[in-house]
Amino acid sequence: MNKKILLSGVKPTGRPHIGNYFGAMKQFVELQDSYNSYIFIADLHALTSVQNKDELRENILGVLLDYLAIGLDPEKVTLYKQSDVPQVTELTWILNCLTTVPYLSRAHAYKDAIANGKEPSVGLFDYPILMAADIIIQDADVVPVGQDQKQHIEIARDMAQKFNSTFGDTFKLPDSLILENLATIPGTDGRKMSKSYGNTIELFATDEEISRSVMSIVTDSSGEKPENVYAIHALLKDKESLDKLYEEKKGQYKELKEVLIEDLKKFITPMREKRVELAKDKKSVLEVLKAGSDKARARAEKKMEEVREKVGLKLS
Amino acid sequence: MNKKILLSGVKPTGRPHIGNYFGAMKQFVELQDSYNSYIFIADLHALTSVQNKDELRENILGVLLDYLAIGLDPEKVTLYKQSDVPQVTELTWILNCLTTVPYLSRAHAYKDAIANGKEPSVGLFDYPILMAADIIIQDADVVPVGQDQKQHIEIARDMAQKFNSTFGDTFKLPDSLILENLATIPGTDGRKMSKSYGNTIELFATDEEISRSVMSIVTDSSGEKPENVYAIHALLKDKESLDKLYEEKKGQYKELKEVLIEDLKKFITPMREKRVELAKDKKSVLEVLKAGSDKARARAEKKMEEVREKVGLKLS
Repeated sequence: MNKKILLSGVKPTGRPHIGNYFGAMKQFVELQDSYNSYIFIADLHALTSVQNKDELRENILGVLLDYLAIGLDPEKVTLYKQSDVPQVTELTWILNCLTTVPYLSRAHAYKDAIANGKEPSVGLFDYPILMAADIIIQDADVVPVGQDQKQHIEIARDMAQKFNSTFGDTFKLPDSLILENLATIPGTDGRKMSKSYGNTIELFATDEEISRSVMSIVTDSSGEKPENVYAIHALLKDKESLDKLYEEKKGQYKELKEVLIEDLKKFITPMREKRVELAKDKKSVLEVLKAGSDKARARAEKKMEEVREKVGLKLS
Repeated sequence: MNKKILLSGVKPTGRPHIGNYFGAMKQFVELQDSYNSYIFIADLHALTSVQNKDELRENILGVLLDYLAIGLDPEKVTLYKQSDVPQVTELTWILNCLTTVPYLSRAHAYKDAIANGKEPSVGLFDYPILMAADIIIQDADVVPVGQDQKQHIEIARDMAQKFNSTFGDTFKLPDSLILENLATIPGTDGRKMSKSYGNTIELFATDEEISRSVMSIVTDSSGEKPENVYAIHALLKDKESLDKLYEEKKGQYKELKEVLIEDLKKFITPMREKRVELAKDKKSVLEVLKAGSDKARARAEKKMEEVREKVGLKLS
């Protein structure tokens, strides 16, 4: 009954690829039995990059369908929309007053944006505080992150600690749950799979898209084994049977790619079909989201009542 | 019926002096018949400087009593608490995403803080955006400000314009209503009356405090007229009768101070007594605030529904 609370936000940014799936999405499904999970669609975060109504709406609905299609179970996971819990922006303001500009200027994402010559928005600058609010307002115990995102959790801990020491014990200090394999999914060119490299295999790809992506996998003719094909194949098959297969078909790159296509189809088709089914019943899907948002908002409001009282914003 | 909307925020920061009264507070009372006024207690703003529950609560209740005691009429003015309209923090986030860090770094208050060697909080940095949200979320037509605060209204206009051009016409562009005499109230030492100079006369002073303050007014023995006494006296009496009085009592500094004491008593006593009466009935006073907050929040929520729709945060 007393499971730890796991919280994570997912930025709605268009179609996911199998790198996203094996790096992070899959873990949410695997962890849903052992944790009391809160997964939110970070639409307020998305506003730092998307300023188009139709695109944002489509991306929000898309990520909702994606996560339900891969097997996130709304009976086990509270799936909600960040903007449906406006209490996080209220808490963000209060935390802003406890944070200095120099402290926040040291956040990696902000420093990277400046290093890349971007003129950062105040939203980008303040985002770590919104994220901290998202996390601590729900009393999260753990937040699954890649190594490169550990700083976000440190900032959330700092914020909780700062508030507690100023106004009295209120917030739990969250811990990182490091997802070790997050950064290691190879793309069709051997580099990390990433939309920006154009080396992805879409998670909900059609059969045709699967074939095209696999056929585009870069192989060199020097080795005995097409390393990039093997690396992607290794996501789907255990090492023993995979080594046997690549030994049998040594040098037969085209045949090996064809086996990978078949294996990807077997893996992707059920999820893609489920997603199509879900998309047909938009009403039910939105009801799932509403139920999650209602629950998350009620928790947040309860916590904020405590915050307003402790800070002195409540008169009676 | 179709009065323009006037909006202003008052930072709760302890006891007001007659400089605050003649410089700004009085205007709100004078303007309440010609405008549809929204006056809010800026408690979220106060958090940038006050981080003590009891102090903040006391200051919020204090400012509420102050404004009712000077004659602000809740039938004419919507008096509300900023934190009772959390929609402003939600809008602040959205505006943050439309604002760049360099733009906001040029705000005077922030530059002053840095120039004074302070380590500014993110709240101080982001405050102009919260203020912009306060203003435009209520469709304010005018915001009364001193010359030195004009930039705040310019930022609010920029924000409204930026949102409108990105997501479609939504916000009215507010105008400044410049209060010309804001900065000219002299203190007991002839400098501008200011808490930081310790040269104030409290607006709700007791008879004893009035006497003490007036007796401390700095006079020099060279002139015929005690200029600093005269300057404060001029707030209460018309020029003609005042000149006559100072002519009659030429050189009689003590006697002139005694007349000023009597005139200040006549001016202050009714307001002080009204404030004492109001403080006895805290329940009714809080009901006035609640009614105002409910009204302001309903307006803000209606506007935010439009904002969420236009930005793409609403799915259905």
